Amino acid sequence: MSSSAYKTIESRFSEISLMGEIMEALSWDQEVYMAEGSVESRAAQLAWLSGRAHELLTRPDWEDLLGEADAHSDSLTHWQQANLREARREWIHAAALPGKLVEALTLATSRGEVAWRNARNEDDFSIFVPHLKKILELTRETAVLKADALDTTPYNALVDQFQPGLTTHTIDLVFDSLKDFLPGFLIEVQHAQNISKDDVAFKKSYSGRKQEELSLRIMDIMGFDFKRGRLDISAHPFTTGHPLDTRITTAYREHDPLFALTATIHETGHALYELNRPLDWRLQPVGYARGMVVHEAMSLFMEKMVALTPEFIQFITPVMQKVFGNFAELSFEHLYQVTRQVRPGYIRIEADEVTYPLHVILRYELELLLLDDKLKVEDIPEAWNDRMNEYLGIRPPGNAKGCLQDIHWAHGAFGYFPCYTLGAVMASQLFADLNEVYSTTSVDIQQGRFTGIVDWLKERIYDRASLLPFDDLVHAVSGQSISTEPFIKHLRERYAV
Amino acid sequence: MSSSAYKTIESRFSEISLMGEIMEALSWDQEVYMAEGSVESRAAQLAWLSGRAHELLTRPDWEDLLGEADAHSDSLTHWQQANLREARREWIHAAALPGKLVEALTLATSRGEVAWRNARNEDDFSIFVPHLKKILELTRETAVLKADALDTTPYNALVDQFQPGLTTHTIDLVFDSLKDFLPGFLIEVQHAQNISKDDVAFKKSYSGRKQEELSLRIMDIMGFDFKRGRLDISAHPFTTGHPLDTRITTAYREHDPLFALTATIHETGHALYELNRPLDWRLQPVGYARGMVVHEAMSLFMEKMVALTPEFIQFITPVMQKVFGNFAELSFEHLYQVTRQVRPGYIRIEADEVTYPLHVILRYELELLLLDDKLKVEDIPEAWNDRMNEYLGIRPPGNAKGCLQDIHWAHGAFGYFPCYTLGAVMASQLFADLNEVYSTTSVDIQQGRFTGIVDWLKERIYDRASLLPFDDLVHAVSGQSISTEPFIKHLRERYAV
Repeated sequence: MSSSAYKTIESRFSEISLMGEIMEALSWDQEVYMAEGSVESRAAQLAWLSGRAHELLTRPDWEDLLGEADAHSDSLTHWQQANLREARREWIHAAALPGKLVEALTLATSRGEVAWRNARNEDDFSIFVPHLKKILELTRETAVLKADALDTTPYNALVDQFQPGLTTHTIDLVFDSLKDFLPGFLIEVQHAQNISKDDVAFKKSYSGRKQEELSLRIMDIMGFDFKRGRLDISAHPFTTGHPLDTRITTAYREHDPLFALTATIHETGHALYELNRPLDWRLQPVGYARGMVVHEAMSLFMEKMVALTPEFIQFITPVMQKVFGNFAELSFEHLYQVTRQVRPGYIRIEADEVTYPLHVILRYELELLLLDDKLKVEDIPEAWNDRMNEYLGIRPPGNAKGCLQDIHWAHGAFGYFPCYTLGAVMASQLFADLNEVYSTTSVDIQQGRFTGIVDWLKERIYDRASLLPFDDLVHAVSGQSISTEPFIKHLRERYAV
Repeated sequence: MSSSAYKTIESRFSEISLMGEIMEALSWDQEVYMAEGSVESRAAQLAWLSGRAHELLTRPDWEDLLGEADAHSDSLTHWQQANLREARREWIHAAALPGKLVEALTLATSRGEVAWRNARNEDDFSIFVPHLKKILELTRETAVLKADALDTTPYNALVDQFQPGLTTHTIDLVFDSLKDFLPGFLIEVQHAQNISKDDVAFKKSYSGRKQEELSLRIMDIMGFDFKRGRLDISAHPFTTGHPLDTRITTAYREHDPLFALTATIHETGHALYELNRPLDWRLQPVGYARGMVVHEAMSLFMEKMVALTPEFIQFITPVMQKVFGNFAELSFEHLYQVTRQVRPGYIRIEADEVTYPLHVILRYELELLLLDDKLKVEDIPEAWNDRMNEYLGIRPPGNAKGCLQDIHWAHGAFGYFPCYTLGAVMASQLFADLNEVYSTTSVDIQQGRFTGIVDWLKERIYDRASLLPFDDLVHAVSGQSISTEPFIKHLRERYAV
């Protein structure tokens, strides 16, 4: 019977999701508190869990179960049908790969990460070359197998792992438009701005304790529920969790109070998505977050669209003065100037809104060439530096600040980079809609009232989880496809002074 | 083939132990960092893991596997034979109970813990009565089934869960001897001591940060490896872990720097045992710690036998002065006086070395009566208070400070209490041996040198893990059975002034 097949699918996913939650909790601990010498045992624990989850998701009877459930899908509710669609997608991704390939990729990336770290520390790309070759070879194999199973292109199959439903068709539309606009706009902004490095520096010392106080305060203001989560410190800020337990991390830089503040706001944007996914759907695929583009849209919506407005800076200025002291460098004028700064730099994660997409486009273009075997691994540094020069007008002084800066390829995460910029584009679409619907948004922001904004996101994004496919969700929330128009308009308004 | 049956047993235990490690990591997080609203998801995660572990340990083919391995045990090494013996014991405990009983007990104790907390907060035993009745009934059932499987008495079967091989025969020998000696000795000491509450109070304020500094310092001095573990804070100090990841917690009381110090030393005693179990045996039953008596012996050895010596106080006095400041109340004389104080009190966990065993004996006697149905749950308060009066000469002002103070019965942990005092007795046997073998021990302690002491424990206890049964281990390390003689001698020497 269909209902029994469908019920079995639901019950298996409850178990698979529970294993996922456990893996997230253990990984969080590894990043935040675990001692370095415990790596071996933690790796064994995680390997055991992911092995069990993979085993359950690739049992030989899945195809029959899904087929049976599909055949009787008219007896399923709309929600169940969506859940079945997402369950099938999860199964396709898992079942497409033979166990040996999964193991080989796990091994290659865990060795690759070590090599990448060494290569970056030594600024010696050659250390990473043989590892990246191996990872690339296995990733290509993965892409081909998944492409076949998903009936799409290999690169789309990789992207689908991170943002289901996103394809190079959409990515190219967005990136072509941004490549047309950004380089010229960047020169324009740089000419208009006349900010020296000294103008945007902080000279006071900001203690971790006080920065933490500010971080906790802004999380509270944004509506983070501390009964179901917490804030900690890690080398790279991140968010992990689910509606009952979501944790973010931040990092404190002594001479830059804005680093932690913006990181915390960014991660809280992710966290609000996780915390507000429908509780009852938590362990079913339809209840998962809709993908990494949407997740990045949620974090960038808070970090860039909201927190870089003059209204937010007006709001946060006295809050910062109260926490840290009434320093001149914490004046509205100075904070505003610092946050307005546009400056080409080598490092993606330190880039401003204008230059960030160019970092991403560069990586996307190289990924495609690498997967198509049109660029050799050995030739990455030159290709990287040439493009940096072409898009941003600067040439990295070494590979540590160039093609070795990101961990993604060492992790085999080809296809991930586009999510950042698609997320930024989606965030600006959402923010434009919000301002159209609620004329009071800027007043809300100026007064530090996030309830209306969060409720609006809840209704449009959080509450829906994975009920709609990606394209449909974008349409449902903004009445159109992904479009760079609001993003470009936003950049013009904010930076073309 | 025996070797194949034995190999299967080993491989299953690797998996079971890994699940145990994961459960420990999740439970640690729950006690230390998890937000209160995440309880439901964590409970589901832990239930799933313990379900899988129980399932694997109670597969129907275990009896055949163990039988086959036993039949060919002459082809096994001595180590493998010991591992097989411990594996069988683990299986017997798991397989003795039907799944329904395990579930019923889990449910009753998780509800019981909530009720116990309320009852204690309200100082109202009646809230706890129906829960404790249910827990007791299910524990009795458990005890009878395990007694049958282990061929022993029901109470021994319960004790065996915590300290394999320990029986009421040994417990009674020890407790009878202590009941003979302690009440009279207590009166003697109290007459001799003339310490007012004011004499042993601290008046300065001790910040958590500085207390943490002291805790980390003493852990380091004792040989705790921070590359494989950490220190955190929790309501009740505890230790959890294994050779690759062992974590302890402590608690800071503003006006009592000795509370955290002794708690940290106690937990470090546990931690050194876990960290020093043979790494390669980590996931096999023969590699587990030998039981809770031995574990308590390891912690009390450090906390009571070593850290309450005048030599240790001489060593720690200047360390404390350096961390906190040169306060008069941190003089050797004052610290010595505080640690020498013997005073009957209501609370077990705050009791001194002389009165502590009487708290334990009281609980042991009531447990036996309860399990034999010779004492009704409703009558516990009266029985408790009468015995407190008889053994310690005081009567609790309410049940919160009487029979509601401990969580053990709410957890269904009948049979655990004796481990504390047997551990104290074993610790004094070990310390007497150490002093006989190494005449330099007191000089080592006075100079804060723990290497010799830890190496000695490593050779005798840590390295052996569960290679020997409990009685054999006691014999091997001290040349005799558990005996109260060294303990009584120790109390006389330390307190009869």
